[in-house]
Formats: sequence, C-alpha cells, structure tokens
Amino acid sequence: MKTKYKSHRCSEITPSMHGCEVVVSGWVHQIRDLGGKKFIILRDGSGTIQITISRGEADKELLEVVEQLTLESVIMVYGKVKADPRAPRGVEIIPTTIKILNLAKKPLPLDVSGKVSADLDTRLRERVLDLRRKEMQAIVRIMNTVLRVIREYLRSQGFVEVFTPKIIAAATEGGANLFPVIYFGREAFLAQSPQLYKELLAASLERVFEIGPAWRAEESDTPYHLSEFISVDIEAAFMDYNDVMTILEEMIYEVLKAVNQENADDLLILNYKPPSISLPLPRITYKEAIEKLR
Amino acid sequence: MKTKYKSHRCSEITPSMHGCEVVVSGWVHQIRDLGGKKFIILRDGSGTIQITISRGEADKELLEVVEQLTLESVIMVYGKVKADPRAPRGVEIIPTTIKILNLAKKPLPLDVSGKVSADLDTRLRERVLDLRRKEMQAIVRIMNTVLRVIREYLRSQGFVEVFTPKIIAAATEGGANLFPVIYFGREAFLAQSPQLYKELLAASLERVFEIGPAWRAEESDTPYHLSEFISVDIEAAFMDYNDVMTILEEMIYEVLKAVNQENADDLLILNYKPPSISLPLPRITYKEAIEKLR
Repeated sequence: MKTKYKSHRCSEITPSMHGCEVVVSGWVHQIRDLGGKKFIILRDGSGTIQITISRGEADKELLEVVEQLTLESVIMVYGKVKADPRAPRGVEIIPTTIKILNLAKKPLPLDVSGKVSADLDTRLRERVLDLRRKEMQAIVRIMNTVLRVIREYLRSQGFVEVFTPKIIAAATEGGANLFPVIYFGREAFLAQSPQLYKELLAASLERVFEIGPAWRAEESDTPYHLSEFISVDIEAAFMDYNDVMTILEEMIYEVLKAVNQENADDLLILNYKPPSISLPLPRITYKEAIEKLR
Repeated sequence: MKTKYKSHRCSEITPSMHGCEVVVSGWVHQIRDLGGKKFIILRDGSGTIQITISRGEADKELLEVVEQLTLESVIMVYGKVKADPRAPRGVEIIPTTIKILNLAKKPLPLDVSGKVSADLDTRLRERVLDLRRKEMQAIVRIMNTVLRVIREYLRSQGFVEVFTPKIIAAATEGGANLFPVIYFGREAFLAQSPQLYKELLAASLERVFEIGPAWRAEESDTPYHLSEFISVDIEAAFMDYNDVMTILEEMIYEVLKAVNQENADDLLILNYKPPSISLPLPRITYKEAIEKLR
C-alpha cells in the first residue's frame, strides 16, 4: 500500500525500476563516507536499500541534511532508482530530497549493525534497539513461518482453532504453581494450560488447537524457565497418544521443511542449520526416557 | 489420518464409496424409528452420516446394541457404504457392528438437536452439550475463516505476527481498569492491550499484528461487556490514521468475502446474512460520531 511516507518498501526497489521516481522511509542502518561519495543504507521492515549521494552532483541543501544524519535516525527519501551492479542487490536510489523525521542520539547505547557485540543485560535494557538487529528480525520472520505452517497443517487435518479462557477459577494441571489474579474482589488464577477447556471442546468439535499464552508460577534459578510462554496445544477425540504423536511429528516435519525453504536467508543470518529429520521419529517409553536421563 | 477409531470422518463418506467397508466414530445425533427400519444420525467434528439398520436384515446382537442407544452416546460403527438417494447427502452406512464407547444419560439436560430451545442460563450451565449444537459449530467454523483471512490479508500487506507480554508492570492505556496479578510476591497487572509493546515492535519490524487475549476490569451492568476478550491489533510505522483505516477496511472486506464464499452453509444454519459493503467505507470524524450518538 502506498502512503505519503513511501511509494515502495525498501526490498521492493529492484534494478528493473531504473529511472522511476520513488519515496522510501525508514531507519539509517549504515553510513559510509568514501570522500566523493556517501552511502546510506536505509532499512525498513522489509529489508534495506542503498541511498547514494555524490558530493559533486548533489545540491548544497541535500548535503547539509546528509551531514547531520546519525545511525538509526528516521528519514524519508525522495529520489530516482538507478540500476548499478556495484550496489547491494544491484540497485540504489539517487536522492533529490531527504527529510529527517527524527534524529537519533549519538552514540547509541547498542550497535544495531552488529559490528560491536553487546552482552545480554545491555541488549535487554536497550530492547528497542536490540529488536532492530538483523538476527532478531530473522527470528521473528522464522517464527511467522512456523506459526503459519502449524496452523495450515493442523487445519489440513481437520483441527479448528479455538480460544479458551485465561482467567480461571481453579488449577487445571498438578505440579505447576498458579499466578493469582484478583477478579473483582475474588481470587482467580491465570491458566497454566487450556487442558480442561480443550477437552470439552474436543467433545464437540472433535479436533481443536490453540496457540496462546500460558503461565506457570514456578520459581527458577536458571534462565531456561519462562513463567509466561506461548503454548501450541492440540486436543482430539477418537485418537490415542500414538495418533497424537503422529500428528505432531508430521507438523514438526512440515515446519522444518517450510523454514528451510522460505527462511534460507534468515538461517544464514543466524548461522543455524535446523536438524534434518525423517519420519517416523523414534519413539521411546517414559521408562526409557528416565533411564536415558540418569 | 486413519486411526483405530475411524477410517473416515463422517463428512468424508460419499455416494462414490458405495460398497466400501468403513469405520466411523462419533456422537449419536438423532435416532428415528420407522418400525422396520431404524436410522441413526452419527455426528463427528466434520459433519454427519446416516446409519441405517433394517430389523429384518440385522443380526440379533446388533439390534440389541441399537436398542440401548441414547442421544449423544459415543459409538464406533463398522459397516458398508451404500449410495441411496433417499439418505441425507445420498449416502448411508449399513452397519455390521456397533460398539458403544460411552452411553449418555437420558434425558439430557439440553437438547443438542435444537428441537427444544433452551434459555441462556441452561445453555451456559450445560455448555459441553451447548457447544455440540450445530449453531455453535457454525460459529466456530466462521471464526476460523475470519482468523485465517485476517492473518493472510495482514501478511500480504507486510505485517508480521507477534506475541507481546501479558503480565505487565503498569497500565498501557488510560480509562480502563486493570486486573492485578500477584507475580512472585510483587503486584503486576494483566495487559489491557499490546499498545506499548507493539509500538516498540513497529519501530523495528515496521508492521506488526497480534491476535490474543486482553483484559479490562470494568464493572458492567449489561451483558455486552467482556472483561476478557480476543483483540485483533495492528501497529505500523510510516502510516497515519487514514492509512490504518484503509488497511482495516480492506481486511474487513476480505473477511466478509471469504465468509460468504466458504461458510455459506454455516450462515444458513445461523439464518444470518452478513452486510454487503463496498469500499471505501464512509468515514466520519469523532465530532460527527458524537453528534450521531446524541
């Protein structure tokens, strides 16, 4: 969709658009100064595009704006697309006007380009900047593929998506502690799982799934435990635990296949190769699992 | 997927399968006795199928089982498919064996077939049965179309799906009251909306959406107010409120189109025709809205 801020998103600009007038907006991802030329890598939610300014050709006003730019500043660029094999993706924009929508402070408390690495404390404190790193964006894009394929696969198997209540009157599973909620003066709890509700729903809709938050108030000394998490939960009538394992292993297989196909670039950014699996997955009994863990 | 409980789901049985041996499982939706013949309408999550028993042809053991059947009992049927134009959808199953997995009490506190209507109190008290009514199943199927199309449309516009924290430290929007949560001895709250988080995410991913629960602790004297609800929430950088309205009205248009196409049967069950809309929708100012309400 065109808005007054952009005729195109960064990744939509291609060499075949050579000569077109465009408007793009985003964040200043990188600035490189080669004396005669200045390169700005502009980033938006879709990707990046190079903005190239020649000191000899650009007018004075434009050059003054460019001199002020800091990393992560928000800018709007009016210009002409130029196909150039030396530019990333073979294309760049020669700007006529650059408008600064918001100037970022300098220096930033976290290096978004990733050249200087930061420890976890800094990353969490500066989460707004941390989320702009390409690794974090890759993770979100992969998560979107995972979510889409989970839903598509479960739907193809006759499962319907449901939402169950999150404020509940009593515990649904043993072992896990509950977060109390004060519900209009009465004590209630946050749901540990959709267990009881999805059982009742399966007695009607036969096959249901829910993707949503769940809470476990378990104190933990490790960073591996989340008290709030997103659960992917299925329930089916007329299936035993082997049938459920078959559904879930096929779901995992489809998810891995899609991530490998659709998120190859993101996996490169993360330097991660998902395990390749073949079905059926080996199945072990609870007893065997306990023995393996010993 | 075939399981030991079913070779097919009810709606998968078609006249073209005439002569095939099948296994189906589900709930006894209706029983009709015509003297020489007994018809059982069997229901599972996919739909219904007619099971036809001829007193003259069926063996004694099968007839004894059939005599015991009550509405909503859970049964497993082994039999042969028979194409018959007189049967619903032109097909029925002639059973060789019927296994009762669970016998339902008689009479039921709520009529699932819908012939006897129930008041809201009864329906909520007997929610497990209420959810089996075809009207409730139609609503869930329509909801699934709505959810799928919302996500597909927003993805096509570059939006990515996110999950934001639900236990929060402070209010995100004025006006609405918060439900307090006791978070490991400290006071926290349930999120009224993903507002602050989605703003930060939009500063990274540019276009985000979330479909998830939100809570408002507002006392209410009417049945129109939910303190827990599922919110569909978008946030975008480089868009103004007119752009957001354009996105949302196109989303609503796509949702209505899909529901009309894919849920025609469900709309018939509910005796409901969604409004037909054409874009752009009329837009009025806040001031005009207030004046209209007066």
